[in-house]
Amino acid sequence: MDIDLSALPTPCYLIDEAALERNLRVLDGVQQRTGCKILMALKGFAMFSVFPLIRQYLRGVAASSLDEARLGSEEFGGEVHVYAPAYKDSQFPELLGYSDHVVFNSFPQWLRFKPLVAALKPDVQCGIRVNPEHSEVKTAIYDPCGRFSRLGVTRREFRPDLLDGISGLHFHNLCELNADSLVRTLHAFETGFGEFLEGMRWVNFGGGHHITRPDYDIDLLCNAIEDFKHRYPLEIYLEPGEAIALNTGVLVASVLDVCHNEMDIAILDDLITPEPLR
Amino acid sequence: MDIDLSALPTPCYLIDEAALERNLRVLDGVQQRTGCKILMALKGFAMFSVFPLIRQYLRGVAASSLDEARLGSEEFGGEVHVYAPAYKDSQFPELLGYSDHVVFNSFPQWLRFKPLVAALKPDVQCGIRVNPEHSEVKTAIYDPCGRFSRLGVTRREFRPDLLDGISGLHFHNLCELNADSLVRTLHAFETGFGEFLEGMRWVNFGGGHHITRPDYDIDLLCNAIEDFKHRYPLEIYLEPGEAIALNTGVLVASVLDVCHNEMDIAILDDLITPEPLR
Repeated sequence: MDIDLSALPTPCYLIDEAALERNLRVLDGVQQRTGCKILMALKGFAMFSVFPLIRQYLRGVAASSLDEARLGSEEFGGEVHVYAPAYKDSQFPELLGYSDHVVFNSFPQWLRFKPLVAALKPDVQCGIRVNPEHSEVKTAIYDPCGRFSRLGVTRREFRPDLLDGISGLHFHNLCELNADSLVRTLHAFETGFGEFLEGMRWVNFGGGHHITRPDYDIDLLCNAIEDFKHRYPLEIYLEPGEAIALNTGVLVASVLDVCHNEMDIAILDDLITPEPLR
Repeated sequence: MDIDLSALPTPCYLIDEAALERNLRVLDGVQQRTGCKILMALKGFAMFSVFPLIRQYLRGVAASSLDEARLGSEEFGGEVHVYAPAYKDSQFPELLGYSDHVVFNSFPQWLRFKPLVAALKPDVQCGIRVNPEHSEVKTAIYDPCGRFSRLGVTRREFRPDLLDGISGLHFHNLCELNADSLVRTLHAFETGFGEFLEGMRWVNFGGGHHITRPDYDIDLLCNAIEDFKHRYPLEIYLEPGEAIALNTGVLVASVLDVCHNEMDIAILDDLITPEPLR
């Protein structure tokens, strides 16, 4: 980038739009090859100044809060998919207004809000998040399939008798991982929940796909999606976050002081909070 | 507290004003016995709805950012003491406007802003934060006196030739600790920096004093302050944060759902962020 860094207000994130578009073309290539739809997870990247570029390639957003859903609806356009571990009565009607897909974390949550959906927005697509009970994430606290996880319905708790009105399933157990992790997870998902996909319209493979990383195995991803669609002719969604912005920019900071305590220490203005220690 | 919790909007912090006032009376007792001044560190507690009660007992606030200084100046009143590891040129004039005491983290920072102080607010009290190089905090990343700490000037880097305009010294190396930790720290501070207190007007003993905890040794604290004042007849400031609100209230949340994965799991609305995991 040919830019005068010293002229920037700091701290700021500086994104190279050409690099961002390279990533978006990689993601769009997966859409073109497989017919899947890729959403942008706002929890991973939400710089709305570049939404006009991103929406030329991606189909919508994945939101996990009322404010994210509103951001997606008002600033991004396209499809707005929402998932949260639970919804609040006081926020649900507004949330529903922004959403095209709403994913519930449990059957009790689904039953609680089903009448509201029917009354306020019967055409919204409702889904259930399931827990495939297959771990790929190594750090326990970040593993959505770790023991006692509250995220998604296990096979044992799944209620086939309550699927009326449910048009899709959602799973998510990856984080910055490659396609081999998805392949293993898909196997676990199918084993546990494949029997319930008859009559469904879509499956959401969640986020954590590091698709734009140089070593990511795009062929393996595309083959896995095509193979899955061959057995289950459904709409497939992926919702990467970090992969959209990966390696597209830098954080620009200023050195405010250099002090010395055995070594030289630069003090930067790059913190979100004013100060971590006092 | 005789209150209907179910009628509260959640999540919310619920403070018992009677318990808060008990804490404030304990702190005021230390002021009365020793003549020291106690400030409230806004980083530890900043619920401005109870500022009118707190300012009946405490003398002002300790702020670590522009916004905290403004909050203290506009909503608390009393003395506003500011310290940050570095100040930004663009913010310093406004910060100075809110402040009665400004503490610098290094001599280069002091020299950089000294002309602005002289031009804009020559009556402000300027201080230097020193590093007594004595550790009491056991967790390394929270220890302001840990190796390579950027917080405060070590004895080796101290510049007695640059003290013109400096009216006080500040140290801070405690966190949720008892008076014995202060006593040991004071000894290290005096050994390193006692010789420079001649001609100073104040010393700030920082925060981290858990004064309102049932097992806190208030007599030892008061004796240490009185003993110090006997040798150095200066104004002494303490700036506890957590001690002000300790054991005065609860976080009230609602159970949004109960799901099951080997055990029952309640999903609450008590998070600041919408969701830690997905």
